[in-house]
Order: sequence, then structure tokens, then C-alpha cells
Amino acid sequence: MSVPDAGRPDPAVVRAPSARSGPDASTTVPRLRAGVLGATGAVGQRFVQLLADHPWFQLTALAASERSAGKCYAEAVSWRLDIPMPPAVRDLPVQPAEPGLECDIVFSALDAAVAGPVEEAFASAGYPVLSNARNHRMAEDVPLLVPEVNADHAALIAVQRKRRGWKGFIVTNPNCSTATLALALAPLERRFGLKAVAVTTLQAVSGAGYPGVPSLDILGNVVPFIAGEEEKIESETRKILGRRSGDAIAIHPMIVSAQTTRVPVVDGHTASVFVSLEKKAGLDDVREALRTFTGPPQQLGLPSAPAHPTVLLDEPDRPQPRLDLNVERGMATLVGRLRPCQLLGWKFIVLGHNTIRGAAGAALLNAELLQAQGFLAD
Amino acid sequence: MSVPDAGRPDPAVVRAPSARSGPDASTTVPRLRAGVLGATGAVGQRFVQLLADHPWFQLTALAASERSAGKCYAEAVSWRLDIPMPPAVRDLPVQPAEPGLECDIVFSALDAAVAGPVEEAFASAGYPVLSNARNHRMAEDVPLLVPEVNADHAALIAVQRKRRGWKGFIVTNPNCSTATLALALAPLERRFGLKAVAVTTLQAVSGAGYPGVPSLDILGNVVPFIAGEEEKIESETRKILGRRSGDAIAIHPMIVSAQTTRVPVVDGHTASVFVSLEKKAGLDDVREALRTFTGPPQQLGLPSAPAHPTVLLDEPDRPQPRLDLNVERGMATLVGRLRPCQLLGWKFIVLGHNTIRGAAGAALLNAELLQAQGFLAD
Amino acid sequence: MSVPDAGRPDPAVVRAPSARSGPDASTTVPRLRAGVLGATGAVGQRFVQLLADHPWFQLTALAASERSAGKCYAEAVSWRLDIPMPPAVRDLPVQPAEPGLECDIVFSALDAAVAGPVEEAFASAGYPVLSNARNHRMAEDVPLLVPEVNADHAALIAVQRKRRGWKGFIVTNPNCSTATLALALAPLERRFGLKAVAVTTLQAVSGAGYPGVPSLDILGNVVPFIAGEEEKIESETRKILGRRSGDAIAIHPMIVSAQTTRVPVVDGHTASVFVSLEKKAGLDDVREALRTFTGPPQQLGLPSAPAHPTVLLDEPDRPQPRLDLNVERGMATLVGRLRPCQLLGWKFIVLGHNTIRGAAGAALLNAELLQAQGFLAD
Amino acid sequence: MSVPDAGRPDPAVVRAPSARSGPDASTTVPRLRAGVLGATGAVGQRFVQLLADHPWFQLTALAASERSAGKCYAEAVSWRLDIPMPPAVRDLPVQPAEPGLECDIVFSALDAAVAGPVEEAFASAGYPVLSNARNHRMAEDVPLLVPEVNADHAALIAVQRKRRGWKGFIVTNPNCSTATLALALAPLERRFGLKAVAVTTLQAVSGAGYPGVPSLDILGNVVPFIAGEEEKIESETRKILGRRSGDAIAIHPMIVSAQTTRVPVVDGHTASVFVSLEKKAGLDDVREALRTFTGPPQQLGLPSAPAHPTVLLDEPDRPQPRLDLNVERGMATLVGRLRPCQLLGWKFIVLGHNTIRGAAGAALLNAELLQAQGFLAD
Repeated sequence: MSVPDAGRPDPAVVRAPSARSGPDASTTVPRLRAGVLGATGAVGQRFVQLLADHPWFQLTALAASERSAGKCYAEAVSWRLDIPMPPAVRDLPVQPAEPGLECDIVFSALDAAVAGPVEEAFASAGYPVLSNARNHRMAEDVPLLVPEVNADHAALIAVQRKRRGWKGFIVTNPNCSTATLALALAPLERRFGLKAVAVTTLQAVSGAGYPGVPSLDILGNVVPFIAGEEEKIESETRKILGRRSGDAIAIHPMIVSAQTTRVPVVDGHTASVFVSLEKKAGLDDVREALRTFTGPPQQLGLPSAPAHPTVLLDEPDRPQPRLDLNVERGMATLVGRLRPCQLLGWKFIVLGHNTIRGAAGAALLNAELLQAQGFLAD
Repeated sequence: MSVPDAGRPDPAVVRAPSARSGPDASTTVPRLRAGVLGATGAVGQRFVQLLADHPWFQLTALAASERSAGKCYAEAVSWRLDIPMPPAVRDLPVQPAEPGLECDIVFSALDAAVAGPVEEAFASAGYPVLSNARNHRMAEDVPLLVPEVNADHAALIAVQRKRRGWKGFIVTNPNCSTATLALALAPLERRFGLKAVAVTTLQAVSGAGYPGVPSLDILGNVVPFIAGEEEKIESETRKILGRRSGDAIAIHPMIVSAQTTRVPVVDGHTASVFVSLEKKAGLDDVREALRTFTGPPQQLGLPSAPAHPTVLLDEPDRPQPRLDLNVERGMATLVGRLRPCQLLGWKFIVLGHNTIRGAAGAALLNAELLQAQGFLAD
Repeated sequence: MSVPDAGRPDPAVVRAPSARSGPDASTTVPRLRAGVLGATGAVGQRFVQLLADHPWFQLTALAASERSAGKCYAEAVSWRLDIPMPPAVRDLPVQPAEPGLECDIVFSALDAAVAGPVEEAFASAGYPVLSNARNHRMAEDVPLLVPEVNADHAALIAVQRKRRGWKGFIVTNPNCSTATLALALAPLERRFGLKAVAVTTLQAVSGAGYPGVPSLDILGNVVPFIAGEEEKIESETRKILGRRSGDAIAIHPMIVSAQTTRVPVVDGHTASVFVSLEKKAGLDDVREALRTFTGPPQQLGLPSAPAHPTVLLDEPDRPQPRLDLNVERGMATLVGRLRPCQLLGWKFIVLGHNTIRGAAGAALLNAELLQAQGFLAD
Repeated sequence: MSVPDAGRPDPAVVRAPSARSGPDASTTVPRLRAGVLGATGAVGQRFVQLLADHPWFQLTALAASERSAGKCYAEAVSWRLDIPMPPAVRDLPVQPAEPGLECDIVFSALDAAVAGPVEEAFASAGYPVLSNARNHRMAEDVPLLVPEVNADHAALIAVQRKRRGWKGFIVTNPNCSTATLALALAPLERRFGLKAVAVTTLQAVSGAGYPGVPSLDILGNVVPFIAGEEEKIESETRKILGRRSGDAIAIHPMIVSAQTTRVPVVDGHTASVFVSLEKKAGLDDVREALRTFTGPPQQLGLPSAPAHPTVLLDEPDRPQPRLDLNVERGMATLVGRLRPCQLLGWKFIVLGHNTIRGAAGAALLNAELLQAQGFLAD
């Protein structure tokens, strides 16, 4: 990790766990101090919850908008998770989202309206920034990381630092529906190649934050539009699955076409996927590819890694948000109804937890990967 | 209309309104007496409601299962519509679903488990049967009728009667999601030709009847499976859009691939559609084709005909079940978010009222078409 | 009607229909010109819809916040009703909510945060103001009117004008849950006297306006708190049922205790009521009192009056929002499950349409009453 | 524990943990073998889940209806919980619900339509039966047990055995809404005495089992009726809070009046409570009584006991099903909005998890109490 400059006070001495040590061993080294930007929002709350007992990271700093700054967290936040607020954070002060926070790494749950310059300021001041915001995702020198899929894209960090003259850096995770989709597509890409994807999403209201979607708009209703979401799915998926060659990512040439809808579900983005593969494949081959898919998080034993990032369900009416979101603690993509499609070759349904694997959990897994790869601690 | 045989008592003398006369003129001729089979179920109730003040048909007979037979309608039914039960039907007796009902025409809202032989018995006994059940839809000699799209398929009635030796006949309407889809596809087929369709539905619970979907399955949830529904969409759509040549319908050669889901919506089936056309088309052409689409129901002024069977919405977040189902009294397909698709050419969202245009209203419009065409009265 | 002063341009000559003439006769006199303040909000939209074809009033002016002023209505509003926007209002300009509007009467759907001084300015400038806002409801000289219950409270108008020196005046209707409750209590008060009421409400989200309740708060949930609502029910009910003696209303001495909750329902406030009567009563007496209750709106044949302001349902599981809100076009209170209570004497369930009888429809019926009483036109 | 007779094969030798030992110590003694009757239903599934890792009981036998018998559990059940099925039960055979099951104790989740004679047969055959069914709850010699409230009612077991000549016995827990209510009332009864309660419930759909409430009845709706529920609340509450004197329970003389409604919530019964106390009390006294309430489960350290059976919430808008059901793992009653009531003295809102503390968890805590009291093992 780069030595933090003046904007970054007094970091703890931290050592990366060796890649082999696994989560248990890692508890013996000092934990990295973590901050959360946008800590009072829906995704921010999820970061706070997931960091509560993390073996590698210790939550030491919370930042939010001016309005909240100065209060303690319990006062500033309107806690919306169905898991009680971790007692340890109740009295943490909420600070302005500016460099100077007492931490070694920051997770950004900032709204896209403000995330751009704030994240850059932190990166410039020497902080590794793990961002859930959309602002830098498609920048050429910013990794859009899904650790099971494109861990090697982390190499862009060096490019980014050099080009921008930053001590720290920004690494992003995909938007919530792309995160779910990418984990279902990656095994197919790896084994058979991908030509085209037509996807229709049925997205939960928690994806829009809080207060987010008015109840009058969604009770007993479907809203067939989510601003900007289709563009994100169509572009981010192709960057994630793109090949890195040297310092650049070649956007994947497949066609991705999306329609997105909002449905009256609290958590869990479902998607109906039609997909066309490069190579011919039998049903058993495709099932096998999905079922056996793993990547660096599984091999490195990262603390938040699901045992199976892609879980294949055989029951005819699954996956379902109400029944399946807790599988792998919300860190897997669930695939069901896999079968041939007479038009594009294959069709299936995917489901993912939009605020865990689709947001805070994704950034956390990215941080764990970077820690294991040596990007965070010397 | 054929002379009813012994199984069919005492029909009123009815005359078809001339095709030109329109609904107003028709009120001066005696109305045909109509019966409803399966009158206590969800679709049956909708038939009862739609027939309450109909200018051409008069509801005179109600039939349901053994359990209900002998009671009056108000006792037998658990009324689930948000419109109060028409007073005139409260005291009508519920009879067994067997030929002998005092009526000139029957609407069948029977469950597929029993509809097959019962509808055949009525047709054999001389009744025109307008069926919403799936049982006979794909039979070669049974019209699967959407009056704006394939009014000429009614010519199969003669084939059917001859082949089966029936005095009456069976005419069917498509299943609820196909009904909505077909009205959006027909204008495109007519103008540009259709090559392929990939469709994902988000269907309302009323489509499963009553009691239907358990609340534990659907509250805050999506169920990505509806038994048999995808097969119906894939086959019925191609029959409806098929060309009649002589006594046969040539199934349309396009590919239709469907995934169907259930969402927590009471009424209104939404679908996300990706479509590939035969001919190149500009956005204005496609919009024009959808906006100006009409057919025989509009030209004949049928009482239940929507002024526009396909309504194009320009707002970016429409159509929505909660806001748009009352357009054209539930008899239109609403199309929104029409735009080019880089994969299949075009994509859009459709919405239709599943128990009106997708069920009872569809059968009623079929009956009106047949009356205007002279199939019902001498 | 008072002669409008300088702030009130060019009123049409209007004549009150004689109290006997009824709605049909009234169509031959010029209609009063009506304005709606707060026309773009949820209640404002309901006013616009209910005024679309009104026999006595003609919608001529729309006012809303600065943000909307200058646009035409179709541009300014995000229409949320499931009935299409009346074509005639699409192009009406939205003006600032200040005296000078071209109309003879104004309906106020303003938010309580701004309603106070704005409504006073209109009243002072000579306009009769029919307000749905809470600001003036409990003022000693302002009628809180439910025409079936306390039509004589309209006599406060003279007091108000004299005391305040206004040419116009303000008349209010109760808050949405009180409106429903008062119509169920009034028949009991009239016949048996009321001692105490304990009420628990289950209120719809449309009661909170738009955007109102965030979906994350209410999907699959109950929120046991609505700010200020219990106080309103406890005070307004006692004013409505209070006796007028001369220039003052004596607040009813009964005790009213309320708990209010929000439930995931779009329209329709349900309440569970326990009530203690002054006099002993048998079940048949109580049923009779509720079933036969009427008042001036019914006797005068006011256009928006329900035939039965209180509808008694005998089915064991009614009333229900999804099934019963359309009874009497949303203008009645539905009472069900009426039975003795071993603790307070009687218990039952009530349901009312919160944006019709509980808001816009209530103000409209008040205006009709005042017109019939001669308060609006000379 | 009584020596099982011929109908009861081969019990393991089990020793009761000493009352002081607590859950940790208990893991060193052999666990009692537990069976679940009605194991495939909604409450049965909850029993299976709660018993999966229980320190004192080991799930060894599953019974269900004829239809399921012979299948393994994974085949027979339609698992509806959002926690994955415990792997250990997947292959357990589902047997008929008849004595002879290999277990030392049975939990009954049977439907009331069949529970009566089946539970009696098991009790007669020597099994302790912990029943969630309503059938025997109000029998004079059957404990209706809430361990924090009336642990001494377990003394009825001896009366029951003697009177009926059974080797085993039946102990019941209250119905789901009563369970929640009783835990909120008991602290008030103990400290101030209770005179009267008026309660309105807002109950979740999971309380009606599976398939239970049709979605068409409850989506966006309130159903103001649950068959038999009000009678249960009114009678069970008074038995639970009744004093035991010798061999009999004196039903508590307070008046309880209930109205029950169903709302579109998956889990969690809310209730609005108005209560009249015998003694005068200040707000601080009442708060203190609720906050400090404990009983034998807490003193004995029973494995399923909540640290606080009654949790007092101070936020103005709590408790809420979506946010608060996981407090104390679903084993506590949450009380919020406590404040004086001008009519009955006090009012507040309660919430409880209907399938945990209101059903399976309640029976399990009863079993733990009986084990600690020495009723289960010799």
C-alpha cells in the first residue's frame, strides 16, 4: 500500500494475510481500518452491517452529507435493515465525506450526484476507494471488478495511479442487476463464448435507495422503466467480460439488449435471460459450466466469498426472491429454469441479492481480493 | 344459426343486426339469450359483469359445478370483482353445465380439467360455444379468434361442423398473455412481417383464478414459472397470425420464445418483448403501424370493440397496470417504450387486461363478430 | 353570494338552484366557475377528476406551486389516478395560488404547510373556499362540515365573515379517517347518544399524497404511526358531532381514543371501532339506525350525494378495500361486522374511500350543500 | 418421564439437565429424540428449522398426512421458509401420524381438523405432546402454557394424566396472536392488575398456513375477519393469565374484546391494544414493568428463551414487521407507542413473530421448560 500523504492521518500498520492463510488465519493480523462514505443511505447501511464482524476490516469512520455530519450514527441514520444495527457503530460520529477520515480504505456508497469528485479526492489523498457508484465504472483506467470473473482487471490500478498521479486508487463494482447477470454469463463465456444476450429485469425497490420508489408507484404495480439502468447493463456487462491486454480492457464484442422493470419486491433482482453462445453446447455441458464455476475468491478463501458463486436450481419454479436470497449469504447468483431456446439457444432465470452481491457485498469482496493480491497493505 | 335440436329448448327468434347497423341500431332487435358455463369462477364473474347491460346479448342461464347447482347465483358465488354484482343475476338459478340450458349461445369459462367434453356436448347439441378454455384452441378445425387480427379464421366453423357433424360449434379465444401480445404483433406482421419474438411476461394473480395463487407465494415475490403458459404463448401466437388457405390455417413460421413469471399484481399482464421483423422499418413507420391498427370490430362498430385495439404510449414509464388498465375499458393492448433493439431490431413493453381482453371480453368480442358475420342468428 | 371585490375579477352570473330542483333542474342554470388550489397533488387530481362533468360547477382555474405555474396542466402534473385525465383540463394553464383566479369558488387541496395564509387570502378577497387542509378545521368560527351530519354548522359562515371582515369564507371537511368514522358514528349519536369510542385505523398510502410513503417502508409491512392523525380523529370527530347553539359549536363531550396505522393498500381507510352508547340498544335497533341514516344531501338530491351515506354489510368478511370502495361511487361509509362488545357495548369495522369521501368528494359535497343553502350564489 | 408402553419403541435414556446448568451444560447429556406431527405444513417447517441445531432435542421422526407418508421429507414438503432446509432432514422418511414414532417427545403442528384424536392417541401411548393446535387448549386439565407467564400451570399435567389415565400428556401453547398479546399483558397484570382489554389485530398471512389466504383476497387489501380468531384471543388470554389454585385454573375475570384483520404482510402479527388496569400507574412505572419483565425461561437459561420476552421500543413509528421481527430471534413481543389513553387508561402497539413465538417457538420453549422442570426425562 502506498504511504498515505498529509491528507491521510496515522494509518495502522497492517499486513496483508498471505493468500493461503484464509479467513481464520487472518484474524491474527491487525485489521485494516475501513471508512464508509454515504453511510446513512440504503447501501451505506448494508456496508455497516457487513463490516460489523469482518475478520480483515474494522469499521472506524463514517461519512455522510452535511445534514448528518456532527451527529452520532444512531441519530443520523434511519436504519432500514431487518437486522438490528450493530451496537458498536451507534456512537460513531458521522463526519463530512472529505479526506482526513481515520481509515486505511474507504467504501463508497455515495449517490452518483456527488460521488465523482469526492471519490477522486480520496483517491488522490492516498485512500484505496472501493466504489459502488456508477461514476467511474466505465473509465478506461478504472477496474470494474467481479473477482470471480475478471480479477486480472485489477492491474488497471497501476495504470490509473500513473496516469492520474494518485497515491490511492478507485476500484468499482457493477450496478446491482449487472452484478447478478455477470456471474451467470461468465461461466458460459469461459466455456462456450458469448454472442448475444437479451435480458429483462424485474428489480426490487431497495435498488432505488431510500426514500426511493414512492409506494403509490409500485404497490400492486409494475413500472417498466428504471432511468439509466438498461444502458448500464448493456455497457458494464461487456466491460466486465472484456479481455485485458496489457494496460487496456477490450470491451467484449457481444450484443447485450436490456429492458428493465421495477416490481413490488423489497430485495432481490430477478432477470429473464435469453442468450446465444459461440459454440454448440449440450444441456449437460451448460449445467456443468454453471455448477462448477469458481474463481480467485474461492481459491483464495476470501472471507465474503460464496462457496459457489453460481448456484443452479432444478426445481421448476425457482429462484424466488422470498425463498432464495439467503443462499450463500446473498453472495451468489441463482440460476433456474435453464433450458434450450429455439430462438437464441438458451434461456434461464437469474436472481441475486441487489444490496449484497449487487452492491455492498460486491465492494467488500473486491476489497478482500485486493488485500489478498497485496494492493492494500505492504 | 342452425336450428337447435332436442337438447336445446325454445330459442327466441333473433336476427343478426346488419353489419352496418352498429350497436345503437341493434338494440331494436331481440337480444340473443346467453348462458355462462363456469359462472362462479373468476372469469365467469367477468362474463356476468360484461353481459349485464349488453345490447346484443341477454344473460339468461348460469351453469357451474355440481356443488353450486341448485343455489341461486348470489348464494353460489364468492363475488371477487370490485364492481358490485349486477342485481339482475342475483336470483338466477345455477344449473349443471349440460345441454338444455335456456339460451342461444354459451360462453365457457370452464376450467380446462372439465371443459373439453362439456363444450363438445353443447356444440353437438346445437349451441354456439364461445370458449375461453385452452382445450380446443389448437385443434385444426377450431378458430382461435382475435377479431382485429384473423376474423377470416371464422370460416373454420363450417369445416368443424361438417367434420364433427355438429349443429353448433366451438370458437376459442387465446390465453390471457397471448391475447395481449397478439394485438401488438399483428400490426407489425401486417406491415413488416415477423421473423422472431422473445417475450418475458410479468403476469397478474387474477390470471390463475380463485383461490389461485397462495398469498405466501407471491407477496413481495416473483415466481418465475406458470405451468403450460410458455407453450401456449409459443403455439397460440403462431396460429392466430397464421394465414388461412381454404379450409386450413398455416401456422406462422416465425419463432416465438417465452419466459413467464408471476408478480404481485391483481389485474394486468405486462410483457417485455424483443422482436425481429422481415422488412426494414424506421421508428416512425413502426409507430404509425401500431397507432393506426384497426380491424373488423372497429369497422363493424361492435359493441365491445375498442376504438383503438393497440394504444401507443409515449411517456417513458408506461404502460403500468395500476394506471392504464381502464384505457378502452380494458379491451386494448397498451404498447410503451417502443425503441430499436441492437439484437433483434425492436423492443417494447405491452400491457393488457387479462380478465377482460385476455378472457371474458375476448370471448364476448368474438361473439359480437360472429353475430355481425351471421354465424349466430338466421 | 357576496359581491366579489377588486381581487376577484368578472364572475359569471350564477343562480343557486332552488333546494328542491335537484341535479337535473340545475343543469339549466349557468354553472359556477370553480378553481382548484394544489391541483397537481394527489387530492388535487381527485378534485379535477370529480369536477370534470359536474352539473353545478365548471372547472375554470388551476393553481399550484411556483414550480408548476406557467405550464399547462398536462405538463405540470404527474397524473396518478387510474382514470384517464379529463381531456378538457389538459391545456388549462397552471397559475400561482393567489387571488385573482377566474372562478366563483375555490377548492383547496393545498398542503397544510402553505394552506393557512393562502386560503385566508382567498376568503378575504371574496372567494368561498372549500378546504381539505387541516389548518382551519378546529377554528371556532370555521364550519367543519359533513352535510349528512351537521349541515346547520354552516351558520358559522356568518360569524366568520363578521368576525374576520371577509367577503368570502372558509368551510372545511374533516381529515380522511375522520370523515369515514363520523358517518358511522352520526346515526348512533342521533338515536342513542355516544359516550366513548376507541378506534384503530388501517390507512391506505394515498392518504399521504405523492410521493408520500416510501415503498421500502410499507411493502409487506405495517407502520403503526401517522403523524398528527390520532389528534385529528380525536378532536375533529367531537367537533363534527358537537351541537351548535347560536354562534358557537359545543364540542361533543364523548371520549375518542385512536391508534392509527399505515398498511400496504392503495386506496381505502379501514377502521376497527369499539363504541359505547348512552342508551341501551338492541342489535336490530343499531342496524336500523345505520341502514336508514340520511341527511340533507339525500333530501336535497345533491349531485354527489350517495343514496345511502352509511351502508351496512352483512357478509362476515366485509367491508374490504379491494371489493367495496366503488359502492356509492366512493361517497359512502361501509359498516360491517356489527356486533355487541362485552367491553364497550358495540364493535364494528368501517371503510371509506379516503380520497373521495375522505377528501375531494367531501369538499365537493360541502360546496353542493352550500349552493343549495344559498351560500354561494345570490 | 413415564415409561413408554408398547406403542412407544425403544426410547433413549435421557437425563434432564439440572435447572441451573443452562444450555451449554446440556449439550453433554444425550438429547431427547423429537418428532414433529404435521411436519410438511407451514408451522411444521418452522419446527423442523428450529430443531435443526437444538442442544436438548434431536429431530428423529417426521409425520404427516397419508399423502406424504412414504416419501422422504425433501420430496414430501414444499419448503416455504427463506432459510434453506436443514440438510439432515432431507432424507428422513415421512411417516403416518400414529404412535410408534421413534422419539421421546412429539411436537404437533397438526391442523385442528385432525389434531384432536391424533394428539390424544400419542398422549395415551406415553408421549409428551407439545401441541400448537387449538383443540385441547381450553380443556380444564390441559396447560395452556407461556413459560414466562404461567409456568406453574404445568402442574395440570398430573391432573390430566390421572383423570385420563394417560402415560403421556398434552401441553399446548396459545394461538399466534394471543401469544404476542399475553407477553405484553403479563407484566401489567403482575404489577397493576388488569380490568379490560380492547384489541385489534393486523395479522400476517403465514398465520393461515399454506396455501392459506388466496392472493386475490389480500394483495393491496385488508380482510376484517379471521374465523374463530377473536374467540381464541378472548378466551385463551384469560386462561393464560388465570390463577392456578390446586388442580384448577381460575379464568381471569378481566374483559377481553377483540377484532381481527388480515393484512398483506408475510410474517408478524401486529396488534393495537387499549387496556384498563386495576391500579393507578405512572408512565415510568408501566415502562419499567414492561422493560424488566422476565420469568422462568430467563432464570433457567432455557436455550430458546429471549433475554427480554418483552422489548419496549421508543421510536415513534415502531414496532414494524419488516424491521423488528428478528429481535430476540423472533421469541420476544415488541411493544411500542406506549402512552396514556383517555378512555381505558393505556394504549400501545404490539408485534410478535407469529410462526416463531406464536407457534413453533412457543411449543419448543414449553418443551424446554418441561425438561428443566423434570416432566420429560426421569
